[in-house]
Amino acid sequence: MLSEFELISRYFTRPPVPGSRTALGVGDDCALLTPAPGMQLAVSTDMLVEGRHFFPHADPYALGHKCLAVNLSDLAAMGAQPIAFTLAFSLPEAREDWLEPFARGLLKLADEHGCELVGGDTTKGPLNISITVFGEIPFTQALRRDAAKDGDDIWVSGTLGDARLALAAYRHELSLATEAHHVAAQRMHQPTPRVELGLALRGIAHAAIDVSDGLAGDLGHILERSHVGARLDADALPPGSILKQQTQELRRRFTLSGGDDYELCFTAPQSRREQVLAAAEKTGTEVTRVGVIESMPGLRLVDAGGEPLDLALTSFDHFTS
Amino acid sequence: MLSEFELISRYFTRPPVPGSRTALGVGDDCALLTPAPGMQLAVSTDMLVEGRHFFPHADPYALGHKCLAVNLSDLAAMGAQPIAFTLAFSLPEAREDWLEPFARGLLKLADEHGCELVGGDTTKGPLNISITVFGEIPFTQALRRDAAKDGDDIWVSGTLGDARLALAAYRHELSLATEAHHVAAQRMHQPTPRVELGLALRGIAHAAIDVSDGLAGDLGHILERSHVGARLDADALPPGSILKQQTQELRRRFTLSGGDDYELCFTAPQSRREQVLAAAEKTGTEVTRVGVIESMPGLRLVDAGGEPLDLALTSFDHFTS
Repeated sequence: MLSEFELISRYFTRPPVPGSRTALGVGDDCALLTPAPGMQLAVSTDMLVEGRHFFPHADPYALGHKCLAVNLSDLAAMGAQPIAFTLAFSLPEAREDWLEPFARGLLKLADEHGCELVGGDTTKGPLNISITVFGEIPFTQALRRDAAKDGDDIWVSGTLGDARLALAAYRHELSLATEAHHVAAQRMHQPTPRVELGLALRGIAHAAIDVSDGLAGDLGHILERSHVGARLDADALPPGSILKQQTQELRRRFTLSGGDDYELCFTAPQSRREQVLAAAEKTGTEVTRVGVIESMPGLRLVDAGGEPLDLALTSFDHFTS
Repeated sequence: MLSEFELISRYFTRPPVPGSRTALGVGDDCALLTPAPGMQLAVSTDMLVEGRHFFPHADPYALGHKCLAVNLSDLAAMGAQPIAFTLAFSLPEAREDWLEPFARGLLKLADEHGCELVGGDTTKGPLNISITVFGEIPFTQALRRDAAKDGDDIWVSGTLGDARLALAAYRHELSLATEAHHVAAQRMHQPTPRVELGLALRGIAHAAIDVSDGLAGDLGHILERSHVGARLDADALPPGSILKQQTQELRRRFTLSGGDDYELCFTAPQSRREQVLAAAEKTGTEVTRVGVIESMPGLRLVDAGGEPLDLALTSFDHFTS
C-alpha cells in the first residue's frame, strides 16, 4: 500500500513549467500564484462524487479527464486563461491501477491547457474528487452572467443532449445501438471544455455560462442575474450526432434540459454576429444562434415556426432530484 | 427538502465586503480575485471526510469551524493574510438543522479573519468537505519549508498533544475525567489557526509548517526540503493543559506525534530571538524554543539533560494507518 507522500510523489509531482505563474507548487503548506500585471484571477471549484456524477467503477482515465474538464469549462465561461489547479480527493484505497490512469487522464488535459497542478490533499474515504481551478483574465473582460442585454442574440457552442442520451441508455430508459451508445457516451465521460472559444469571445460576448445542468436552467441563471428574459427557438438547438437521429420530442427535451453538455451558452449584440462567427471559426468550434434576449422576464420557448411551446422543463438539481 | 440554489442562497450568500479583494463572489461560473499590487496569492486546499477527520454525527457548528481552521492554518504557516475561500461539500441530505449551525461556525471564523466565501459547490453524497483558501503575501516574504538554516532555533506555538489525548479518550485507550476530556476535546474540535503569529513572523522566521500530522513528522518535512537535520528536546515540547497532567511517556509521545494540533513549527536565526518573542507577545500567542537546526541530516531527540532518546515515532499517514 502506497503512503500518501509516495502517492503524491509518484503520480502527481511534475517538473516545474518554464514561464509558469506558480512560484511554488506541490510540497509546501501553500502554493504561490502570481497573476500577471493587470490580470484578475478567476477561481472555480467543482466536486464530483461517485454514484452521483459518475458511475461506480468508472474508467479512471476518463474520470481524470472529466474532473478537470468540468472545472476548465467554468473558466471558459468567464473567458479566463487556465493557469493552475488544486486537486483534493478521497478514495477507498491507494490502488496503483486506479491512480496511474486517473493521473494520466487528468494531467494530459491539464497539459493541453497549460494548467499546472500546484497543490492538493489526498485522504481515505468514499471516492470524491474536488478540483479548484485558477485562470487569468484582464480587468473588466470577464464574461459574467449578469451582463446580458435586451436584444442580444443567444448562442450555444457545439451540440447538446448526447451526454443525456447516453445516460438514458445506461438507465434503460431507451435503447441505442452499441456504436451509437459509445459515441454518445464519449460526450458524457470526456467532455471538451470550450476554453479557446471563451478566450476568443472576450470583448465580443456580453454574458456567458457553461451548460452543465441543462440549457434551459443554465440560461435561466443568466436571465435572472441580468434581469432580462429570453425567447428560445427549441428547434434551433443543435442536437448531438446521436440525438439527431431520435424523435423531435426527445431532441427538444434533451437539448433543453439534458445536462452534462459542458458547452457554452452566451449572449452577444446582433452587431457582433460576424465577430462571433470569426471567433468560432478561429477556434474550430461550431456555434449556433438559438434565441434572443428580451426585456420581459422569463423564458419563452417557441418552435421552428415561432409558435409557443409549453414544455415542462426543470433543471437538474442535486438535492431535489 | 431545500434545493441546491435555495441552500446556497439561504446559508452561504452574504453581503459584499467593503474593500474586499473579490470583484465577483458566489453566483457566477467563477469568482474573481484581485491580489493587491506586489502581492502573491497563497493557495491551499484540505479535504475533511466523515469518519476519517471527524466523527460521524460530529457537532456541525464545531465542524464548520474546524474545516476552515485547518485551511487557515496552512496560510498561517506561509505568513499569508487570508482573503477568500471556496467551499465544496457533499452531504447525504440538505438538512437545515445541520446546515444552519455548520454555516454559522464556518462563517464566524471566516469573519474573524476577513476571509470571504467566494464560491463553491454542493452535492449529495457521503459527508465530505473540501475548502480552498486564498491569502496574500508580499513577494519573497513567504515562510517556506525549504528555508531552514543550520543553527536556526526551532520554535513551536501554543501547546501540543491535547487533541491527540482527547482522541485517545474517545477511543478508550485511556480515561480522562469528564471536564478534562471536554477541555482537551476543544483542542481537537475547534483548533485555533495561528494566522496573526504567521503574519508577525514575516521577515523574522526562516521556515515554517503547521503541525497537523504530529510535530516530528511535520518538522521532518522542513528538514527534508531544507536539506538539514535537527536536535529536538523532547522535554521542552509544551504539552496541552490536560496532557501536562499525564505521564512523561504520554507527554513525550503525544507532543511529538499527536496530530491535529494546528500550531506553527518554525525556525529562526538565534539572532532573532527577541523579535520572535516580540511577535509572540504582540499576537498573544505563546512560543517555545524546542531545538536547533543542524547540518547533519536526520532528527535527533534528546531529553532535558541532553541525553539521546530513541522514540519509535511515525507521523500520521492517511493510507498506511
